[in-house]
Amino acid sequence: MDRRSFLTKAAVGGTAAAAATTLAAPAYAQGNRTLTLVTTWSRGLAGVHDSAQRCADMITAMTDGQLTVDLKAAGELVGAFEVFDAVTSGQADMYHGADYYFVGQHPGYAFFTSVPFGMTAQELVNWYYHGGGHELHDELGEIFGLKSFLSGNTGAQAGGWFRKEIAGPEDFNGLKFRMPGLGGKALGKLGASVQNLPGGEVYQALASGAIDGTEWIGPWADEKAGFQEITQIYYTAGFHEPGAGLSLATNREVFESLTPAQQKIIEIASGEAHQWNLAQFLANNSAALSRLQSAGVKTLQFPDSVWDAFGKAADEVHQENMGDEIYKKIYDSYIASMKSSSAWLKLSDGAYTAQRDRVLG
Amino acid sequence: MDRRSFLTKAAVGGTAAAAATTLAAPAYAQGNRTLTLVTTWSRGLAGVHDSAQRCADMITAMTDGQLTVDLKAAGELVGAFEVFDAVTSGQADMYHGADYYFVGQHPGYAFFTSVPFGMTAQELVNWYYHGGGHELHDELGEIFGLKSFLSGNTGAQAGGWFRKEIAGPEDFNGLKFRMPGLGGKALGKLGASVQNLPGGEVYQALASGAIDGTEWIGPWADEKAGFQEITQIYYTAGFHEPGAGLSLATNREVFESLTPAQQKIIEIASGEAHQWNLAQFLANNSAALSRLQSAGVKTLQFPDSVWDAFGKAADEVHQENMGDEIYKKIYDSYIASMKSSSAWLKLSDGAYTAQRDRVLG
Repeated sequence: MDRRSFLTKAAVGGTAAAAATTLAAPAYAQGNRTLTLVTTWSRGLAGVHDSAQRCADMITAMTDGQLTVDLKAAGELVGAFEVFDAVTSGQADMYHGADYYFVGQHPGYAFFTSVPFGMTAQELVNWYYHGGGHELHDELGEIFGLKSFLSGNTGAQAGGWFRKEIAGPEDFNGLKFRMPGLGGKALGKLGASVQNLPGGEVYQALASGAIDGTEWIGPWADEKAGFQEITQIYYTAGFHEPGAGLSLATNREVFESLTPAQQKIIEIASGEAHQWNLAQFLANNSAALSRLQSAGVKTLQFPDSVWDAFGKAADEVHQENMGDEIYKKIYDSYIASMKSSSAWLKLSDGAYTAQRDRVLG
Repeated sequence: MDRRSFLTKAAVGGTAAAAATTLAAPAYAQGNRTLTLVTTWSRGLAGVHDSAQRCADMITAMTDGQLTVDLKAAGELVGAFEVFDAVTSGQADMYHGADYYFVGQHPGYAFFTSVPFGMTAQELVNWYYHGGGHELHDELGEIFGLKSFLSGNTGAQAGGWFRKEIAGPEDFNGLKFRMPGLGGKALGKLGASVQNLPGGEVYQALASGAIDGTEWIGPWADEKAGFQEITQIYYTAGFHEPGAGLSLATNREVFESLTPAQQKIIEIASGEAHQWNLAQFLANNSAALSRLQSAGVKTLQFPDSVWDAFGKAADEVHQENMGDEIYKKIYDSYIASMKSSSAWLKLSDGAYTAQRDRVLG
């Protein structure tokens, strides 16, 4: 993978003025400056848009007006899935989004959102900051001219919304289902017709019957999206995104034109937004689930046979990508860190919460 | 509880120069300025000192020299347990420490580190940022003239180091054990002679026989502290600190003299340090535990009868504090948030990791 795949698309949809602003960046380094942040999120998408907005607001506040981050939601400057190319080309300065939307640019980007049977949010953070994850994110960024930071997280995502209950893996055969990233590729192994739609287009697709089912995030964000108005069968645990990270990516030339203090502010604002956003989802999901259940939503767990099929399919997807040297390097680092993190978490958080449940009832 | 308890101790050990610097703070608001950060940690204490240092370094870096945070470890300006009074009196500008060291100032401070049978680290973050926790921390801070932020976390702490195995709750009777906060008060209900020692003094106390056993943090920090050189009986899960938060507290007058951008930088640096530090502990514990086991350390779990006794004792300690209106207000908010967070985490992370373990083996 090299820069060719995006250079052919460079500046598509851009304006001469926008390109001039960013390409002339070094001249602006000492003065006040506006950075354009494009996102993969429509403004109405709870949690994911909020984390982008928090990054923007905190960078603006901490730089005391030196940098003003101007957030353009999906469709306001470019479409949801066009943000990667908009930033690599210099049409926009930064994007906030889920990097697994860009597995077409490089499959290794999947790890910085979530991969099937991969890390929980806490395991992802452990790897990112103390297990080499951020350095590997940087290695991908150098290929594409990006400087990326983990900057949001949805927590473990729900299995999703279905029109019929799932009795076994064969029920995915022929199902038109929305699921991005490597999870979607795994679902395809079960015969599903997988679609990758931006969040802002999912409700309409489900309502119109263009898709038979969808995952989105979890009870709080899903309730805000309104899927319970269309169907009432909801699987609460899923295999596909056990801790979905969101990224803030800056055009590398723009980033390098900033002062060290401004660079540090972008880095720390992103990290803080990750924690704040993960807590936002996790603090709101329980009450939202109760409301959904009160409104008639039936919550279910996939049977073991389905989890077994998910596991086999997920492994096949990983194996297909192992020919890519960078993918394999990231995979090996990720799996080693996950095994280490999960072993301790089981002995500590796991043992503790089991006793708390037992003792407090 | 009012300001009297610390006013009597004001400026003890301080210098006239240091007091003048902080009390004259508003005059410095527009220029470069050094803030003195005292901590409850000796420099050699892995993880906890690191999170204080990260806060200091990030604030200094992000303010581009406007603020230089000068970290004074335990004993360098004041003793570990004197930092609270040093900051409320204006002798120092900020402290970094575990707020449960200050349950003597107000028992409500325990919740901002950890309480027995309380929240895991993730549950604490959910409550702090999205369940009213930070606002309650602020309410305590207004009593004492502090502005506090969560800024580090050890994760669920290990049960600790013992010279003899624990067969039942009666084995705590007469045991001289180091455990701070409400966990220590609960252990006292089992007849233990509980001591509250700063981290930097624990090794010597254990080695000399002044105490029979101790908890500190977890495998990585405990290995660095060297307890395995003294005894080799280690309990990996504990009831007392299931997700111990660390705080950065600023003298409120000093904080209010800063610019809005500087205030925001302190807030966001603290939040980011919390995430970075928690990940640091969790990323390092598994490998440290393996090394300890290779060196002959025997790892154990407390029997259910001990957990039952811990649960009863912890509840007694909470009930004894309920006469304090603020304590009860914090307790009610904390417990409601914990129930909500834990219910969702069990359905999502819990269900997912159980399937991951089952499928991947």
